[in-house]
Amino acid sequence: MNTALAYFTNLQINIIRAIEKLDGNKFYLDHWHKDNHSPLQGYGITGILENGQVFERAGCSFSSIRGSNLPSAATQKRPELAGCAFQAMGVSLVFHPHNPYLPTVHMNVRLFKVEYPHVPEQELVWYGGGMDLTPYLPFAEDAKHFHGVCKSTLEVFGHDLYEQFKKNCDDYFFLPHRHEQRGIGGIFFDDFHAFDKDTNFQLLQAVGDSLLPAYLPIALKRKDLPYSQDELDFLYYRRGRYVEFNLIHDRGTHFGLRSGGRTESILMSLPPKVTWSYLPSQRIKDLENELVTKYLIPRQWL
Amino acid sequence: MNTALAYFTNLQINIIRAIEKLDGNKFYLDHWHKDNHSPLQGYGITGILENGQVFERAGCSFSSIRGSNLPSAATQKRPELAGCAFQAMGVSLVFHPHNPYLPTVHMNVRLFKVEYPHVPEQELVWYGGGMDLTPYLPFAEDAKHFHGVCKSTLEVFGHDLYEQFKKNCDDYFFLPHRHEQRGIGGIFFDDFHAFDKDTNFQLLQAVGDSLLPAYLPIALKRKDLPYSQDELDFLYYRRGRYVEFNLIHDRGTHFGLRSGGRTESILMSLPPKVTWSYLPSQRIKDLENELVTKYLIPRQWL
Repeated sequence: MNTALAYFTNLQINIIRAIEKLDGNKFYLDHWHKDNHSPLQGYGITGILENGQVFERAGCSFSSIRGSNLPSAATQKRPELAGCAFQAMGVSLVFHPHNPYLPTVHMNVRLFKVEYPHVPEQELVWYGGGMDLTPYLPFAEDAKHFHGVCKSTLEVFGHDLYEQFKKNCDDYFFLPHRHEQRGIGGIFFDDFHAFDKDTNFQLLQAVGDSLLPAYLPIALKRKDLPYSQDELDFLYYRRGRYVEFNLIHDRGTHFGLRSGGRTESILMSLPPKVTWSYLPSQRIKDLENELVTKYLIPRQWL
Repeated sequence: MNTALAYFTNLQINIIRAIEKLDGNKFYLDHWHKDNHSPLQGYGITGILENGQVFERAGCSFSSIRGSNLPSAATQKRPELAGCAFQAMGVSLVFHPHNPYLPTVHMNVRLFKVEYPHVPEQELVWYGGGMDLTPYLPFAEDAKHFHGVCKSTLEVFGHDLYEQFKKNCDDYFFLPHRHEQRGIGGIFFDDFHAFDKDTNFQLLQAVGDSLLPAYLPIALKRKDLPYSQDELDFLYYRRGRYVEFNLIHDRGTHFGLRSGGRTESILMSLPPKVTWSYLPSQRIKDLENELVTKYLIPRQWL
């Protein structure tokens, strides 16, 4: 786990430095420990920037936890592992910009280790993560750029991986109660261990390292575009969908909250200002129609 | 079901008239039907007032649905009924005021009928509902008034009912991931059928009829109190907890969304403007400390 620890902590700090340079404001780094009386032990560094110049809220966190009782939410594909001791380590980030032309981005890379009881040497290690983009006032070229970086990142490891991980992402980031995708997708993988240990980890690193090239060019292009009050209202309104996905559907959020994780760090993914409305204005309905029918559907972007 | 239909539709309209009188603005009444291709059939009248003079968002809805496949979320206490045909009818309301001194209130009264397959005469009818109050800048006398009305409403039906339903309410409206009650409670009951059919229904009616006497005096007393920007920010911040409860924990919300209910009507309970913050101001932390330690704990208010 030492190689992973070094990689993850460096990744967090590299991303934070790049985002600070873009934003102009600094992250607050909150070091935390979960005490021994909790069902979950561990520590982490929650990096958070609120009311920045580009980002209304940007969170980029490292955490390393160890639990004695794997919750079933984490093991839908492997129910036999529920109740086992486990370790999880990773970096997770969500950036919510002020500007409705600049999409929200989410990235996560993690390593998961489960121990069968009484057979400590029989460890299971698997890899998970991905990144996805949620635009509000969308540009097709941004979606193409983001997916392009995802594809070239994975191509080194196998020609079908991008298509496979893209489909996982479309399947996962879907709101059944709205019949909508959360965003324009990206890549997502879970319980991954298809290659040898070193290659699995190299793939994880490649995904983590590709966040900045996937997102920064979009951020630079969109962060200063002028927008109207209507468009800002639309951003707050659509952020409601982001909250709905994370609180109703996201397995990571449920896993974290149910396993006794640190609530403030887990819910760092929620957007800062959000509205719900039963009777949105015609302008909001028009913007929503454009977004939902042309972008929030599974699409080939490349 | 005709008596129930008449009672519920009248209750909705009586409450809407009273709230319109208080607010000065009118509700929008949205009649909807679920088509036959949906797993759930039914109709309803969603009553909604947005950007009123007292209420930022007030929803008061009647709905009557029939489904062919009872979701397991509705039958945690009776797993053998999952998959049966069912009918549900009721009135549900949530009022979110502008003024942080005026609490959010929630009330629901409903009737649930399940049919065992191949034994149509063997119907199960049960009753559910309750009401609870969520203050932001709290007054002990408001909590006492609200619980006093709850208690006197139930006393006619049995001397221990209030204590029992109050405990149900404290148990149910709890956010484990925050170690907080949602509000100062009230009463809550589910799967209720302790008396004969007529008495069960009279109890349900008594609860529905007590919403206005429980809430209106508080609304009249608090709606015009002056408040600061800090206090308003605190309202938006604390509304985040309301969203967290409804989307993560509320069985009614999950039941509605999973059974194919009408999303816009179900999520009408969400507050209009909400914020999340990792680094709230000291003033917000102080207000929160007062609220959480003195009010958002199970307490005897009478």
